[in-house]
Amino acid sequence: MSDHSVAPVVPVEAYEPPYYVAVFTAVRTQDQSGYGETNERMEDLVKDIPGYLGMDYAQNPGGLAITVGYFRDAEALAEWRYNAEHRAAQKRGQAEWYESYSLHVAKVERSHGFVRARVPQGPATG
Amino acid sequence: MSDHSVAPVVPVEAYEPPYYVAVFTAVRTQDQSGYGETNERMEDLVKDIPGYLGMDYAQNPGGLAITVGYFRDAEALAEWRYNAEHRAAQKRGQAEWYESYSLHVAKVERSHGFVRARVPQGPATG
Repeated sequence: MSDHSVAPVVPVEAYEPPYYVAVFTAVRTQDQSGYGETNERMEDLVKDIPGYLGMDYAQNPGGLAITVGYFRDAEALAEWRYNAEHRAAQKRGQAEWYESYSLHVAKVERSHGFVRARVPQGPATG
Repeated sequence: MSDHSVAPVVPVEAYEPPYYVAVFTAVRTQDQSGYGETNERMEDLVKDIPGYLGMDYAQNPGGLAITVGYFRDAEALAEWRYNAEHRAAQKRGQAEWYESYSLHVAKVERSHGFVRARVPQGPATG
């Protein structure tokens, strides 16, 4: 795949507070059977929640994974929290996929974003 | 290096709310000259802040990096925010190291932790 067909990675923007973040930090087990499918399903489901603002994800190879979900208000977050499929996935996560995790649900009081000014370039090649 | 000399990766724990999280999501530039030294210095500095609770970090290879700092209260966070060396590092980050970033500062209202029960094992070998 050539580089120019890949959208550039950009973090979820800094919205105008207040909004909510759910910070999920996890170390996974060695047996990840079924994790990929469930994770994809969860990503699809959460997008249908009114007030869902986006998600950032990063994982150190073989190590800690951090997921940050962004929600407009407590109602949006509650709808995701109590979603039945999400609940079932959490139970399976505890039983199979996670060695340890922490969840921090927090109300954003201040936010700030930065994007580097672009230097004009010729058309991509390759 | 043998495995048993490496401490297991564990996320920062879920403290009793309220406390603060600072979520910093960033995409770095190609030229990272000086970043490593500055980052190490910042990690040393923040540990001296009374009320600093810990930090989680993950980066997708070549992509998004997420840093989450945890602080006991707004005063601890403010002390870090206004630290002169930290301010200087932020300016250099905008000038050199970051393509884009978002910062979300939030007060934790709910937290939850999970650690898998350990199966007893024999002594490590290797």
